Amino acid sequence: MTDSHRVDGGTTRRSFLRTTATTAAAGIAAFSTLSSGGCSEPARWSSDRRPRPSGGSGKVVLFQGDSITDAGRDRGRENSANDARAMGSGYAFLIASHFLAERSNMNLKFYNRGISGSKVFQLAERWDKDCLALKPDLISILIGVNDIWHTLNGNYQGTVEIYEKDYRALLKRTQRGLPGVKLVVCEPFVLRCGAVNEKWFPEFDRYRAAAKRIAGNFDAVFVPFQSAFDEAVKHASPSYWAADGVHPTMAGSYLMGHTWTNAVSRAKA
Amino acid sequence: MTDSHRVDGGTTRRSFLRTTATTAAAGIAAFSTLSSGGCSEPARWSSDRRPRPSGGSGKVVLFQGDSITDAGRDRGRENSANDARAMGSGYAFLIASHFLAERSNMNLKFYNRGISGSKVFQLAERWDKDCLALKPDLISILIGVNDIWHTLNGNYQGTVEIYEKDYRALLKRTQRGLPGVKLVVCEPFVLRCGAVNEKWFPEFDRYRAAAKRIAGNFDAVFVPFQSAFDEAVKHASPSYWAADGVHPTMAGSYLMGHTWTNAVSRAKA
Repeated sequence: MTDSHRVDGGTTRRSFLRTTATTAAAGIAAFSTLSSGGCSEPARWSSDRRPRPSGGSGKVVLFQGDSITDAGRDRGRENSANDARAMGSGYAFLIASHFLAERSNMNLKFYNRGISGSKVFQLAERWDKDCLALKPDLISILIGVNDIWHTLNGNYQGTVEIYEKDYRALLKRTQRGLPGVKLVVCEPFVLRCGAVNEKWFPEFDRYRAAAKRIAGNFDAVFVPFQSAFDEAVKHASPSYWAADGVHPTMAGSYLMGHTWTNAVSRAKA
Repeated sequence: MTDSHRVDGGTTRRSFLRTTATTAAAGIAAFSTLSSGGCSEPARWSSDRRPRPSGGSGKVVLFQGDSITDAGRDRGRENSANDARAMGSGYAFLIASHFLAERSNMNLKFYNRGISGSKVFQLAERWDKDCLALKPDLISILIGVNDIWHTLNGNYQGTVEIYEKDYRALLKRTQRGLPGVKLVVCEPFVLRCGAVNEKWFPEFDRYRAAAKRIAGNFDAVFVPFQSAFDEAVKHASPSYWAADGVHPTMAGSYLMGHTWTNAVSRAKA
């Protein structure tokens, strides 16, 4: 197989990820915003090539959200940084593994505190313990799908206005409690299969738009997950990326990790 | 941080993985050996860009080994292909996620049947169920560290000669049962920290050499994990990559996935 195998639109069959893969490889500078420590100056190793002592920034990165972030993580280990099982089997694990290897000099500390079922107001309820207490330098939040889903299935009475108001209050509180914190707001996304039917639209698009608006207002990096999946479904069925339309498969999680890395990499420091 | 930050030897501080990252992005052809299906011809999508039906090769990829491969996988889900929790929290998960996303047209099916504590003879004992029955098209095996470790701690009486003899018998049986199967033999590796002390050497190097010899004799792809970790410890401490010297951290697992992908990608079809 060669690059000459093209799909319509002029992209190669393997290019839709590959374009970003190249960026991801180049863009490991993603965490330049965290590199106030040893990473930002051109520290040279001593000629005997012994590893430098555990220096680097020592910065803390926190993933927050619902079941997509949770991804079956072992909550009993959630206080251990960089613990594979505490990171779950989703995009948080993929991203953390990538940066821990690619940025081995930075002494980064990754945590995952996503909890299945969470809506914005539930993040707020546990924010002191599950965010502020960790003193993260970067917080990545993916929230919103339950705010609409649980409303559609009758278990919650949400609106996009409540979502946006609660989300803004949460980020204000975060910036007040953690001055200088870097925020990453991830776009809620769905695939048109499984639990996701026409009843979700166009209301769901309004939740996405709210998240993007919030990201802009709070100087947060915005991660365009929906766009990534919209492109992906040109290459394999929606259920290939998220069997029930909401929870990503392994392929979907990899796509998320890729999209996240690219978005964060391209952001201004 | 820029590429101009150099370590001795002329490589950039982030280049030791990045070099291979680029290869990995380019080298998704890794699975060209499996692409006897839709991947090998320049199939074009219809102009309406609907996803092609679940075509592709449908090939089966199996990871086999000990605790490093097992990585806490959910054994109750081991019969489900491409199940995140069934893949564990290690290199098998990282590799499978990568290929499932990058090769979404191939309909690949990944399984993990590594079991903690396994030595070669224990793979053989469960080979019918945990390998041949799955009819894999590609088998990746990482085995050997327990063959020496359990001997050093008095729980097994192994030698490198037994290891090599058992390993050769296993691969002969595999090729007999699965004509045309593609084999990937991974190099056993250790980091000099934790449970690994000077008593391991030079005996451990003989196990590594045996694995490499076997790979050559069986026309298998050889994955040079030890070389990868030997390079990695120039960039961070041994325990950063494998806290106990044997089991990789998230950073170590990512390095393994990277090394595996590069080795398989470079192999002749």
